[in-house]
Amino acid sequence: MSLITLTTDFGTKDHFVGAVKGAIYSELNDAKIVDISHHISPFHITETAYILKNAYQNFPKGSIHIIGVDSELSIENKHIALLLDEHYFICPDNGIISMIASEIKPEKIVEVTIHKNIISSFNVLDVFVKVACHIARGGTLDVIGKEIPEYKQLTEVHPHINDEKNKIIGSVIYIDNYGNVISNISKKLFQEIGKGRTFKVIARSNTYTSIFQKYNEIVNYSTPIENRQVDGKSLALFNSANYLEIAIYKSNLKTVGGASTLLGLDYRDTVTVRFN
Amino acid sequence: MSLITLTTDFGTKDHFVGAVKGAIYSELNDAKIVDISHHISPFHITETAYILKNAYQNFPKGSIHIIGVDSELSIENKHIALLLDEHYFICPDNGIISMIASEIKPEKIVEVTIHKNIISSFNVLDVFVKVACHIARGGTLDVIGKEIPEYKQLTEVHPHINDEKNKIIGSVIYIDNYGNVISNISKKLFQEIGKGRTFKVIARSNTYTSIFQKYNEIVNYSTPIENRQVDGKSLALFNSANYLEIAIYKSNLKTVGGASTLLGLDYRDTVTVRFN
Amino acid sequence: MSLITLTTDFGTKDHFVGAVKGAIYSELNDAKIVDISHHISPFHITETAYILKNAYQNFPKGSIHIIGVDSELSIENKHIALLLDEHYFICPDNGIISMIASEIKPEKIVEVTIHKNIISSFNVLDVFVKVACHIARGGTLDVIGKEIPEYKQLTEVHPHINDEKNKIIGSVIYIDNYGNVISNISKKLFQEIGKGRTFKVIARSNTYTSIFQKYNEIVNYSTPIENRQVDGKSLALFNSANYLEIAIYKSNLKTVGGASTLLGLDYRDTVTVRFN
Repeated sequence: MSLITLTTDFGTKDHFVGAVKGAIYSELNDAKIVDISHHISPFHITETAYILKNAYQNFPKGSIHIIGVDSELSIENKHIALLLDEHYFICPDNGIISMIASEIKPEKIVEVTIHKNIISSFNVLDVFVKVACHIARGGTLDVIGKEIPEYKQLTEVHPHINDEKNKIIGSVIYIDNYGNVISNISKKLFQEIGKGRTFKVIARSNTYTSIFQKYNEIVNYSTPIENRQVDGKSLALFNSANYLEIAIYKSNLKTVGGASTLLGLDYRDTVTVRFN
Repeated sequence: MSLITLTTDFGTKDHFVGAVKGAIYSELNDAKIVDISHHISPFHITETAYILKNAYQNFPKGSIHIIGVDSELSIENKHIALLLDEHYFICPDNGIISMIASEIKPEKIVEVTIHKNIISSFNVLDVFVKVACHIARGGTLDVIGKEIPEYKQLTEVHPHINDEKNKIIGSVIYIDNYGNVISNISKKLFQEIGKGRTFKVIARSNTYTSIFQKYNEIVNYSTPIENRQVDGKSLALFNSANYLEIAIYKSNLKTVGGASTLLGLDYRDTVTVRFN
Repeated sequence: MSLITLTTDFGTKDHFVGAVKGAIYSELNDAKIVDISHHISPFHITETAYILKNAYQNFPKGSIHIIGVDSELSIENKHIALLLDEHYFICPDNGIISMIASEIKPEKIVEVTIHKNIISSFNVLDVFVKVACHIARGGTLDVIGKEIPEYKQLTEVHPHINDEKNKIIGSVIYIDNYGNVISNISKKLFQEIGKGRTFKVIARSNTYTSIFQKYNEIVNYSTPIENRQVDGKSLALFNSANYLEIAIYKSNLKTVGGASTLLGLDYRDTVTVRFN
């Protein structure tokens, strides 16, 4: 039995998520449904792209991922289903899969065509559930849509590299639960462009000359604990998703604040790496 | 194996939800438990009624729905179990099932009597779990309670119709994740009273002369995208639950605001439809 | 198949929880995963201890509990796995299990040693999942770590008793979804020290001379409902977890407020019981 995941901006108060799960269980009694996130900022495609990229790859091959963010059907917002990296994705064609698909080419993309006569404001329930159950039962993509060659690209997930190739100009694409600020600069790109050169990371008025792999690399454990004063210090690291992140050690958005609030870094702000 | 759903005001930080799930799994090893919502506003019966009505009907027949909102037992707040529309509901008798039961008559209602000697402030754990597991194992309602003819009615879920039958005076019963404002005026009632006449929807200082079926019906796709200025516009539609909703196109409560904040519409505010 | 629970401070917006679940399902196709909480305040060990104690005991014996709060490995923050009360716990050695282990002695504690070469900022994914799946498959603790005699104690979960044994000086360890304020004074300790004497509970400027078992014991049901004025009244009770709690009847943090906001009681504030 295939596993079906849900990534939406529905929140968890309303009936939307429950309704979708009920509908899946009504079609597939033994379905296994996993929530990835329902707290995407409403209509936020970049957030979705980041969350999805970092979650999906941990699931078993053959998993089916339903993405319900800005998914109302229109002539400009088609519904697509893809096979990519041996996972299935069902989503609007609004760029949501750009971060995954920029690294791994989709094997097959179809425009979903099963809803010719449905007028609905809840397409995840009316359309995506049907597509997911079809695939879970072993159905092919051809039955539920017609093949298309391309998906919509989301440009802001890709940083800019200057002509001299000594500067990566990225931007903030995500702020996490701890207020840590995540840029679109991947470790892979950093290494390709940097080629081992020394560097400076610049985010607003903050600069960093080293990039950690763990948050607690900032701690000097040989200093007695009472003299450390490390909580609340800012650092740059490649996070577990391998993106360059500006973090505050042991931050808490609700009390002391996080990198986003303390350093004044917001979604779309510039993060630059300069190589020497 | 029956499916058990949970609808509560417990929130998801505390141990309450985990404790309830653990207790169910301890009794029924192969239970399938689905969260409908744990973010009902504390003690909010109308919100619960709305969420429950729109979620339950998507689940398979025979599902068991536990509702833990204002469920502490007292002589004025009995516990009941119902069979209704081939679904089971376990809840306090405080009006929570009014929106469902006003359309579909319960087949059977029992007052739960298994807890004669339990003094507890966590009745969902101590009582509702036992009732749910009893039903899931195929037990009958008669064993866990005595039949009663009536459940408590919640009046505010029903709009008022004037004597001339040219006006429906409803009220706001729910505000969703996007800040959209949902009234207690159903599409069915609107059509019954309206009989095809032209109309005006009035909510505070806002009036609408058409009611959409989809949010993006407000968009004129023949206008070039840069000239549309449709984000943030307000509209009336029958939402996916078939209730009259005042919405803001692509709203976000945390940034630009939603219908509730932008139009100043709150729970219990009046929404009127006037027919010509 | 063992049941695996998750208690973390990850929040439910980011990809962290989804990633962990995906990784478990990739190793154990038929795993049963249950969320206890993902909304622990970041790095908050006392909150975790309280939630965990009250949730775990409802789960079937043999369940495996993953705890991801302040879990980044360092020379001062080891990873441990325990067998305690026939449940398995996988967590950092930072005091998180103090509330459970203070009442029930662990049968076995091992320091996890499978991650000698892992440099990672997401140890729940990289380490705890592997340990949990190992145990779920029937593996022993000895294979994944070396036995240690002790776990780190968290002192603030234990109240102080004066020499005359007529006073319990406790503190607030948790504030729940309703704003109710929970102290570290257990019913068991209260009875042991009190020995049936009359008493006064003091929390800031509020005193209580009785402790209820249910919230609605504060209601006098013989008074007509319109004359009761009981909503918003404060009371002391032993909550369903058997800890002394200061509550507001039918509170709501977002509207009228809860005990925490109305009585000015915060985490770590003193709650005292004086016996006569």
